[in-house]
Amino acid sequence: MAGERTLRLVVSYDGTGYAGFQRQKDAPSVQAALETALATVTGEPRVRVVAAGRTDAGVHALGQVVSFRTAGSIPTDRVGAALNGVLPPDIRVLDAAEVDQGFHARYRARRKVYQYNLLHGPVVPPFLRPYCLHAPARLDLDAMVRAGASLVGRHDFSAFRDAGGRPTSPVRTIYRLEWERVPVAGALPFGPGAGGRGDPVAPGPLAGDVLRLTVEGDGFLHHMVRVIVGTLLEVGRGRLEPQAVAVILSGRDRSRAGPTAPGHGLCLVSVAY
Amino acid sequence: MAGERTLRLVVSYDGTGYAGFQRQKDAPSVQAALETALATVTGEPRVRVVAAGRTDAGVHALGQVVSFRTAGSIPTDRVGAALNGVLPPDIRVLDAAEVDQGFHARYRARRKVYQYNLLHGPVVPPFLRPYCLHAPARLDLDAMVRAGASLVGRHDFSAFRDAGGRPTSPVRTIYRLEWERVPVAGALPFGPGAGGRGDPVAPGPLAGDVLRLTVEGDGFLHHMVRVIVGTLLEVGRGRLEPQAVAVILSGRDRSRAGPTAPGHGLCLVSVAY
Repeated sequence: MAGERTLRLVVSYDGTGYAGFQRQKDAPSVQAALETALATVTGEPRVRVVAAGRTDAGVHALGQVVSFRTAGSIPTDRVGAALNGVLPPDIRVLDAAEVDQGFHARYRARRKVYQYNLLHGPVVPPFLRPYCLHAPARLDLDAMVRAGASLVGRHDFSAFRDAGGRPTSPVRTIYRLEWERVPVAGALPFGPGAGGRGDPVAPGPLAGDVLRLTVEGDGFLHHMVRVIVGTLLEVGRGRLEPQAVAVILSGRDRSRAGPTAPGHGLCLVSVAY
Repeated sequence: MAGERTLRLVVSYDGTGYAGFQRQKDAPSVQAALETALATVTGEPRVRVVAAGRTDAGVHALGQVVSFRTAGSIPTDRVGAALNGVLPPDIRVLDAAEVDQGFHARYRARRKVYQYNLLHGPVVPPFLRPYCLHAPARLDLDAMVRAGASLVGRHDFSAFRDAGGRPTSPVRTIYRLEWERVPVAGALPFGPGAGGRGDPVAPGPLAGDVLRLTVEGDGFLHHMVRVIVGTLLEVGRGRLEPQAVAVILSGRDRSRAGPTAPGHGLCLVSVAY
């Protein structure tokens, strides 16, 4: 069509209120919210967006990438602000750009970065509750780091894939898998660190850590990051030896890996093309 | 009463879902949630709690302090976990301690620390939306710092008080009033900073700052921090000269100060006794 453009958006959302990215019959989805907003902004009744990663229910995004085609006349540099004017505030467009006609947010994605937060402390601060899995018991982070290292590289990840995704090859490459330890007090939107003289907030209850996993790969199977987290948690709790993870990987048997960690600790951080 | 104890709790809450601390007839309050949980935990039908600061609708707390008396037999060191087992997850008890019988969370408070977050950037990331006021226009932070300095000390703060609070003396002491600049990317529960190679999240949209005001005083009048923020914002936007704030203070006329900033950017960080 004459004048049709392909646009790429970088989108951030809090997944708490959504049944996932993908449009559902009877539940709110990020896709439906974006497409409704795009219909308003472009004047076209049916704009279909494609996402780099179809995040599950409760999963967040810092830098999800979506693409769509439009014959609408709105200038590209006004698309972001126009969408943010009509989107719910838990979905924000961070960037909008015109890309080549053949661009496809999913097929063209070369690398994705996901993060998963574990709240390792006695109490989950209310401000972090939607973004962390509470893991209060003692965790051997060194063992989790060693176990995770065996997943880096090009492997058949059948053991770390739940049923229900697309029927694709189970071979994926993980470029890096890193843990960092962020003090709880440093991860809050308000800061006891600035509390000053005789700081009366007992340090104990906020003295825990956010253990943040960053995984970068060329693509991820259904629930793959969450099964990795669930399995590394078994290692951290001493229920699995670190070296067992390499054995589970090579065995390709999902039933040997750990449980699927819940979605709300997970975030799609960025996508590279 | 024989065996009656006075207990002090440190409580954190996300104020988004509450009409404020204080019990209301037809709206959820933090007080009602705490008292309901205490009734369950102590076995006493009517436990009344007193808070150091009665935060308004939408206002958050990192280290609110409440006190109550109980004749219940639950050991003090189990009160926190027991309450967290029955409280909604947006209210968490961080600490519980037995204190002298005459302790009163409000009357005994000597200093309080509040913080207020301004999101100074083009887009409010969904994760910070409940905890920041969006202030996208250019702000002269230096002017705001200079204006704020004139409020430090012992003053009649009638110009920075809204009607509706307790009829108390308008004289208060502000010990410190400080601004800090926290990069938006560093204030998020997930980290583009860990994004690594060829970080594909456009830096621009997340390149803003959280401008965080910390105010410590011996007590605060009704809406006092919020009127201070609203007034300093007028300075930051160039609508008021920095030196005008000292004049407004000495004039004691509320109508000369700025508007009351919304509650959701505010947090009671800590209370000292």
